[in-house]
Amino acid sequence: MAKVFIEPVGVTLEIGEEQDLLTALLAAGIAIPSDCAGRGTCAKCLVRLGSGELTEVTEVEARRLPSHLREDGWRLACQARPASGRISIEVRQTGGRRRILTTSKLQHGHAKPAVLRRLVELPPATLEDKRADQERLLAACARGDGRQAALGATRELPDILRHHHWRAVVTSYDARIVDAEPPEAQAVPYGVAVDIGTSKVIAYLFDLDAGRLVDQEAVENPQMRYGEDVISRIARAVDAFGAGELSSAVRDGVNQVLGVLCDRNGVEPRHIYDMTVVGNTAMHHLALGLSPVGLGAAPFAPAVAAPLTLRAAELGLAMNPEGGVHFPPPIAGFVGSDALAVVAATHLASKRRPCLALDIGTNTEIAVAHDGRVTATSCASGPAFEGYQIAHGMKAVAGAIERVRIDAAGMPSEVATIGNQPALGLCGSGVVDLLAGLVTSGVVDRTGRMQEHELVRKGENGLEYVLTEGAIGPIVFIQHDVRALQLAKGAIASGWVLLLENLGLEPSDLHRVYVAGAFGNYLDVGAALRLDLLPPVPRDRVAFVGNAAGVGAQMALIDVRARRRMAKLRARIEFLDLATDARFNEVFTRRLQFAARD
Amino acid sequence: MAKVFIEPVGVTLEIGEEQDLLTALLAAGIAIPSDCAGRGTCAKCLVRLGSGELTEVTEVEARRLPSHLREDGWRLACQARPASGRISIEVRQTGGRRRILTTSKLQHGHAKPAVLRRLVELPPATLEDKRADQERLLAACARGDGRQAALGATRELPDILRHHHWRAVVTSYDARIVDAEPPEAQAVPYGVAVDIGTSKVIAYLFDLDAGRLVDQEAVENPQMRYGEDVISRIARAVDAFGAGELSSAVRDGVNQVLGVLCDRNGVEPRHIYDMTVVGNTAMHHLALGLSPVGLGAAPFAPAVAAPLTLRAAELGLAMNPEGGVHFPPPIAGFVGSDALAVVAATHLASKRRPCLALDIGTNTEIAVAHDGRVTATSCASGPAFEGYQIAHGMKAVAGAIERVRIDAAGMPSEVATIGNQPALGLCGSGVVDLLAGLVTSGVVDRTGRMQEHELVRKGENGLEYVLTEGAIGPIVFIQHDVRALQLAKGAIASGWVLLLENLGLEPSDLHRVYVAGAFGNYLDVGAALRLDLLPPVPRDRVAFVGNAAGVGAQMALIDVRARRRMAKLRARIEFLDLATDARFNEVFTRRLQFAARD
Repeated sequence: MAKVFIEPVGVTLEIGEEQDLLTALLAAGIAIPSDCAGRGTCAKCLVRLGSGELTEVTEVEARRLPSHLREDGWRLACQARPASGRISIEVRQTGGRRRILTTSKLQHGHAKPAVLRRLVELPPATLEDKRADQERLLAACARGDGRQAALGATRELPDILRHHHWRAVVTSYDARIVDAEPPEAQAVPYGVAVDIGTSKVIAYLFDLDAGRLVDQEAVENPQMRYGEDVISRIARAVDAFGAGELSSAVRDGVNQVLGVLCDRNGVEPRHIYDMTVVGNTAMHHLALGLSPVGLGAAPFAPAVAAPLTLRAAELGLAMNPEGGVHFPPPIAGFVGSDALAVVAATHLASKRRPCLALDIGTNTEIAVAHDGRVTATSCASGPAFEGYQIAHGMKAVAGAIERVRIDAAGMPSEVATIGNQPALGLCGSGVVDLLAGLVTSGVVDRTGRMQEHELVRKGENGLEYVLTEGAIGPIVFIQHDVRALQLAKGAIASGWVLLLENLGLEPSDLHRVYVAGAFGNYLDVGAALRLDLLPPVPRDRVAFVGNAAGVGAQMALIDVRARRRMAKLRARIEFLDLATDARFNEVFTRRLQFAARD
Repeated sequence: MAKVFIEPVGVTLEIGEEQDLLTALLAAGIAIPSDCAGRGTCAKCLVRLGSGELTEVTEVEARRLPSHLREDGWRLACQARPASGRISIEVRQTGGRRRILTTSKLQHGHAKPAVLRRLVELPPATLEDKRADQERLLAACARGDGRQAALGATRELPDILRHHHWRAVVTSYDARIVDAEPPEAQAVPYGVAVDIGTSKVIAYLFDLDAGRLVDQEAVENPQMRYGEDVISRIARAVDAFGAGELSSAVRDGVNQVLGVLCDRNGVEPRHIYDMTVVGNTAMHHLALGLSPVGLGAAPFAPAVAAPLTLRAAELGLAMNPEGGVHFPPPIAGFVGSDALAVVAATHLASKRRPCLALDIGTNTEIAVAHDGRVTATSCASGPAFEGYQIAHGMKAVAGAIERVRIDAAGMPSEVATIGNQPALGLCGSGVVDLLAGLVTSGVVDRTGRMQEHELVRKGENGLEYVLTEGAIGPIVFIQHDVRALQLAKGAIASGWVLLLENLGLEPSDLHRVYVAGAFGNYLDVGAALRLDLLPPVPRDRVAFVGNAAGVGAQMALIDVRARRRMAKLRARIEFLDLATDARFNEVFTRRLQFAARD
């Protein structure tokens, strides 16, 4: 097991000697191009050795890598494996390469799942030994994996034992026996880490014996039909006096994604024994069926803020009903367990130098760690940066404009769509690019007003910038879109400004800025910096860490100790409430302005 | 609180000074006639003071009781209350008076239910105090009734607190908060003690705050459609590989009786927070959904023999889903928790002199206590003594012959039916009377053969004794009926013979013989003694204690300490396995014979 430090991402992975770097990097959610599934034919998965040793250059590399690259230390990640205990490598960054989901098997080598599964053989019942079957089983599991037994696991036990020579495959969860099956049952125990986002439910299926990611899938959060943002969903729940419908919707979403993962991988729901769930506090509450009414008005007190482990049956999830479902604790009313998971996954609290992590979404969570202190906040950034509530906004699917360059004269020099399809609208990264370009070129002034320009015209909804001829009509960006984005960026910038101020830090003190979340992954660093979404730091200090919330959920899934660590971490995190911070209004008003940098 | 010893029942009740004896006796399941609901007009509830003092004779008694009775110490139970600490009274026995169900609130004064319910007022959430609602609630319940909170109790808590000035009615079960309701919720917390018999499900509804019996009800065990006896139901479950259908059937039965109790008393199922369940081991397993396959063949090992407390939701019961359901432990494969409940309710283990308790049914459990030792056994007595599998047998409903006298010439001198309706068949007590009479008069000889007699004729099914002209044809008692009853009485007698032998006791050593169960209640003591159903003791040592299994379930319901005591008692009880006892065959063969006594 080698410790491999990955530049410029800034994380350390533990990679086995038998494992190639590509597999390890992809599993860890680090974006690296690869088109040939690791066969060595595309030669795109370039990594450069910094320090330490890798296995020798293979024949495939000798054939596919130009000699000048080899001399410069470049290797193909699919061919190279660790050959010393400590290694640092540099990954060729991939700009706008799309990865919806990212994952990790951090600490794979030290996984300690809650679930244990093994074959046991019991002494048969005789006239001299009439102990109850359950008592017999518990005595045989005294090694520590069975201190008690769930009723559900005992129901068929008498039949199994008597039909299979007193042998059974027994699965335990946290020393509680939760399943007993005939000895021919060969299935490994599975677990699922779930990240419930406002718009998406992302799930990662793990083989818990091996601590190995098997598959991952995302579905739209079925709550979307009740409102695109958290606030409107809470309002709905409050009107209805309870979580009811919204709660069912999110459970349906989780069951839907479980169904896909089970079907695609031939896994029986019965063999999913463990689940960890992270999400913002509203999603956390709704997933648990807790009324979110307290989150709808000051002082935004949550219903529950403790870590919870429930039986799956209590939540109606399509997995083993006796299995466990663990919810790491939310930090505050608007800083959820997903933010805790980000802090845990980036190891923010244990960095020697000041670091910041942020997860941009409808709600943006920001955390800063320095000198043993961790402070977190959140700001309502709205869905504009994800392409929602923008006149020609759309989801990041084929036909969405994801990359835009605006030249100094304010004219589009590049308009790239996903899949190179005729343009249908703008997705999040396209919106950011476009706005940054318009601000830099002066088409939008510092106050956010559109100026006269040959592409600016008066449309039905006021002034609009005509970006391109779309597939079914011109794609425009309207004055109102600028205002929506201005509010969002003002909120986000106020968040990191006040957090840094609180810890007595300047942006330049930040050693690293971790950008988490699907959105961050496609973001152009320059555009994001120019729009104040990120604190002004040198570009190479910005690391896109993918779905770090999902990684945190995975850490908790494959290692019960991580659950305890996260609960402790939660207790350490200070919450900065922007809503009641006296400085907020002044900072926010200032940060609404665009500052032409770069 | 006075200790009142009741003769000839042989139990001691604790009766409050404010309580009249009739209420206390009826609540304790002691049969006493009363037709006027305690108004003093029927003058039937006669009791005679033995020692100690009662309140003074009331005007009602002076008016209604003839002076010779008053002079003889007789009182009306509905008028008299305890007036000294220790009292003994004699209850006028009622012969064949019918009481299907009996109950008790033994130790009412010392009830310590698992359930506590009270109004709490919490400090409101403020900007300075943003603790989670649940944390706030737990802090307020630190008095001991809330060390943790069920998710189900927290779901609506945020709405309740914010709509009702941070006040809520909170119910806890064993220091776990299981319900939170608006402050106007006035309902008391309810609990139900359930006795699941092979043929009947009997339930007792209690107000847990007052420790008071509110109502009781019995329904037929819906499993009856799968076979009348336990063995055939186990066989069915074994064939089906699991408890499935049978388990649903018994759950349906419990829910049905819960429904009746709730409707009739205006109780919401949500306000039933606790349940205790006793039954034979097969019913215990099936109620829990446990496969009874181990009970179907030697060595008859149960699936579970530990005390269990489950959430109601796990069992699908129509009560508060977060409420608890407690199952006292079974003693062995064929000696259930109902037998444990009988031993607990009769305080058998703490008697100074040898005592025996038996509960006659399809399966008959017998326990003997002497000198700190308690030994129990069970025998498969079949349903014949309950009127099943008897040619003209029937349930104890209107038209059933319940009382028969046969004169020395073998002729019926009395044939009484329930409700004085035209005769339709024979119920259990009628069968016992009839057989005892036929044996005594010599119509049936010691080997069980019917002799020539003017009422014995050859029928379709062999010899038959024509008892009476029934409503729809003659009621006969056939040779095969005698054989079925012979097997049953042989099994029961072998049980008590071997138990006594094991403890080195003679029947004459027995200070008291407690006869539990609905069947016992209608039994003629003389007939039962003549047929060997009871060990040969003087009649006045036989006490009919009604549904003592139900009383044990009630004790556990209203007092959590009784649950622990029963678990300890279970550990003390030795099980005598007749199936493997070398003496059984010889004793059984001998006891098949009828011995004309009396």
